[in-house]
Amino acid sequence: MQSIGPAGQNIAEHPYRTITPSIIAQLRAIVGEPYVIFGNTDAMLDYAHDEVAGAEHAHSPEAVVKPATAAEISAIMRLANRERVPVTPRGAGSGLSCGAVPVFGGILLALERMNRILEIDRENMVVVVEPGVVTNDINEAIREYGLFYAGYPMSVEMCHIGGNVAENAGGGRAIKYGVTGQYVLGLEVVLPTGEIVELGGKRVKDVTGYDLLHLMVGSEGTLGIFTRITLRLRPLPTASAVLLIPFADVSSAIGAVPQIMTQGHIIPTSVEFMDHLSVQTAYAYLEERLPHPEIGAMLLVEVDGTSQDQVEAEYNGIVDLCVEMGALDVYVGNTPSTERRMWRPRQSMAEAFKAICPVQSIEDIVVPLAQIPDLMPELDRLSRQYEVLIPCYGHAGDGNLHATVVKRPETPMEKWEAELAQILEDLYRAVVRLGGTISGEHGIGSKRARYLPLVMDPTLIALQRRIKRVFDPLNVLNPGKIFPP
Amino acid sequence: MQSIGPAGQNIAEHPYRTITPSIIAQLRAIVGEPYVIFGNTDAMLDYAHDEVAGAEHAHSPEAVVKPATAAEISAIMRLANRERVPVTPRGAGSGLSCGAVPVFGGILLALERMNRILEIDRENMVVVVEPGVVTNDINEAIREYGLFYAGYPMSVEMCHIGGNVAENAGGGRAIKYGVTGQYVLGLEVVLPTGEIVELGGKRVKDVTGYDLLHLMVGSEGTLGIFTRITLRLRPLPTASAVLLIPFADVSSAIGAVPQIMTQGHIIPTSVEFMDHLSVQTAYAYLEERLPHPEIGAMLLVEVDGTSQDQVEAEYNGIVDLCVEMGALDVYVGNTPSTERRMWRPRQSMAEAFKAICPVQSIEDIVVPLAQIPDLMPELDRLSRQYEVLIPCYGHAGDGNLHATVVKRPETPMEKWEAELAQILEDLYRAVVRLGGTISGEHGIGSKRARYLPLVMDPTLIALQRRIKRVFDPLNVLNPGKIFPP
Repeated sequence: MQSIGPAGQNIAEHPYRTITPSIIAQLRAIVGEPYVIFGNTDAMLDYAHDEVAGAEHAHSPEAVVKPATAAEISAIMRLANRERVPVTPRGAGSGLSCGAVPVFGGILLALERMNRILEIDRENMVVVVEPGVVTNDINEAIREYGLFYAGYPMSVEMCHIGGNVAENAGGGRAIKYGVTGQYVLGLEVVLPTGEIVELGGKRVKDVTGYDLLHLMVGSEGTLGIFTRITLRLRPLPTASAVLLIPFADVSSAIGAVPQIMTQGHIIPTSVEFMDHLSVQTAYAYLEERLPHPEIGAMLLVEVDGTSQDQVEAEYNGIVDLCVEMGALDVYVGNTPSTERRMWRPRQSMAEAFKAICPVQSIEDIVVPLAQIPDLMPELDRLSRQYEVLIPCYGHAGDGNLHATVVKRPETPMEKWEAELAQILEDLYRAVVRLGGTISGEHGIGSKRARYLPLVMDPTLIALQRRIKRVFDPLNVLNPGKIFPP
Repeated sequence: MQSIGPAGQNIAEHPYRTITPSIIAQLRAIVGEPYVIFGNTDAMLDYAHDEVAGAEHAHSPEAVVKPATAAEISAIMRLANRERVPVTPRGAGSGLSCGAVPVFGGILLALERMNRILEIDRENMVVVVEPGVVTNDINEAIREYGLFYAGYPMSVEMCHIGGNVAENAGGGRAIKYGVTGQYVLGLEVVLPTGEIVELGGKRVKDVTGYDLLHLMVGSEGTLGIFTRITLRLRPLPTASAVLLIPFADVSSAIGAVPQIMTQGHIIPTSVEFMDHLSVQTAYAYLEERLPHPEIGAMLLVEVDGTSQDQVEAEYNGIVDLCVEMGALDVYVGNTPSTERRMWRPRQSMAEAFKAICPVQSIEDIVVPLAQIPDLMPELDRLSRQYEVLIPCYGHAGDGNLHATVVKRPETPMEKWEAELAQILEDLYRAVVRLGGTISGEHGIGSKRARYLPLVMDPTLIALQRRIKRVFDPLNVLNPGKIFPP
């Protein structure tokens, strides 16, 4: 068989069968007639892509199946192994690495019907949810109990918690609260071979055997399908403030971050970074005046806490330190409406660059915080050499930057298409030289699979392929992801 | 070949060769003459056990080897695979599950010479250390930079950081700061087959492939030997206070804990729990008067923070809530000497029960916090049925309790030896019924390996055995641990 595989590459000889009417009949018997879509190409298109731009990354499934229970998913996986058809699980489709794109066709397992909050356990400070719950809905449901789920991907109002766990989503609060995995206490998982297992539970400490629970977290839907998720909660913060701090250059902006933590003894909730090009573009897009005429880089810092006094003490500490570190100015907002307004430039960033040119590659590189200033000349060099824009913004607090490669409007598509892979390779090599890696929170998926050998020892890639085989001997669950073709 | 294996069981036919003079010569060529101990039984005895009491848990190695570099360890592992001899890595020997006991003899790999702090990177807030550094020495070295390593096993002044990572050590601060794994950003690892690989690095976010880094954490020295460890640091807390809070019964003590977090919005640094028997025994041992004549259970709560004001606000909040929840009294200490004095009963607990009878089994069960009161009648029932003492104390904040089964002095050893396995099995079954597990921080090792099937699905045990084989096809690294014989 032949198929167009990841990133438009020709995948010669893959081992999968095409879906037959007999398979469809079996799927309908498992989940019920209305929950199998087959042969309707329009509906299929919605399930052919995630939020990664570019038709070369899309691939239609042969059938979309919408199960409601772990038992149904178990039956589907047994069928898939028997018939040798690939299965690709999908949450909200808000991913940025083509993790939910069915690159070999087969069954698209849409988890959207499994969207219930099953239990709010106030005494144990945990919530138990199905994978298709929108992440933000968790916080809406638990607020009245004084509880808070600290996972916070930027797509929080759209993404599903199952996808967050599959990608080990990070986001803008990881500096203080860590990433998704830190809050996952338990998972019910359907293994690729169909067994239903329980990992972890309502317990904060557990060293019983290998940490399969956190091997599942971030496995990008390749090791198992999560059907029930137990999340650890925290006390709801009751006060917050946002600071917008323009600096003359990148070094002084980034230099302030460890000072805030070590000299000020404060861990902010968020430390977002925007370089000169990002700031200019976002404010122009919003038609707002720049906070200072000579901005070389800007930090957006958020603090939260359990009392207004504590939050005030923290932001005053940050103001003093940043002024000492050469901040051009400091703006503080501590009402919900000013905080929202101050976040707007950062939150509009992706939109602002799409307005310049929608042809782009949103990247997710990580470097050690202190190496961010060394990254900047590399980005400058690449943008001049290849005549592209590379704005750099993101979660400075943890060195996770969404350096986005944007086509200049005037550049012909042919040049862009011919050169993008080389630009990304050069970028990734620079990141690795600085002690970084190619994805902090978006994942490898099919988008970055071919680049994995740039950052990972062949021994480690081989080990991971063998771990994949331990769980999924016939490679039916989400094939074409993570590992280079 | 035959050998006496884990917990005194007769291990028929294991696949290992005994150490020959030729192997010793090769080991001496790798690490140097003075760093191989062979044939000296007195020196061997020090390496035959960890902190688990009982001769039935001890086993002498055939040779003790003390490497100084990853390259030397790599050569040792290649030799071990070639010659089929088992290798057991060991840190300070402070473990509580026989994880470092060489149950099949062979080579004991003592990592005590690899004890350097390699780098303190203030800007990135990380420290890079070798595995043989005493955990507390890290904090001594970084304090002057305003930095703090939050891992805090109770043996912090003796244990080695490599062992902490291997066991995913928890301890008394996990409720606020999490367990060791949360702070491990990078590892240099010698694989069982001898390859040296790098996992992670100085980066807080990393979703590049499967999370092998955290699969290594808590793998009890069975998947790899850590030769360099990169740890994330936090700002040094500058203020703290300790509260000692007697309650009339277990339910009201435990009921106060979620209230502190959800109603008070405070996450304490520690919430330690002591039941009636523990409190009585510790105070009698210290020859101190009980804090209240009617203590049914007691909490020891610590808070820390970045300012004295904040810490005061937090402990005042806790005092008010605990009084409301029925506390008999509240004692507050916020000077180093009073804090130390208030911790003394909790810290002397193990000693106090050893003074009653040194024949005991220190357990490490976990139940969901809110289920602690339901555990107490089970412990009462078991102690009556088997005529043993089962004091219960530990880290209530995360449901991790060191329920210790202590022989009554008057009970004959024969009865104890005949019944202990059944007592533990009954205890573990009770824990599992309450949604818990058999180890929160001490590990399975060889001590609890036979009990693993009580808490883990056979599918999961089989998966883990296959993962072990992926890393260690000939099962030469730390065999006889985790998996039931």
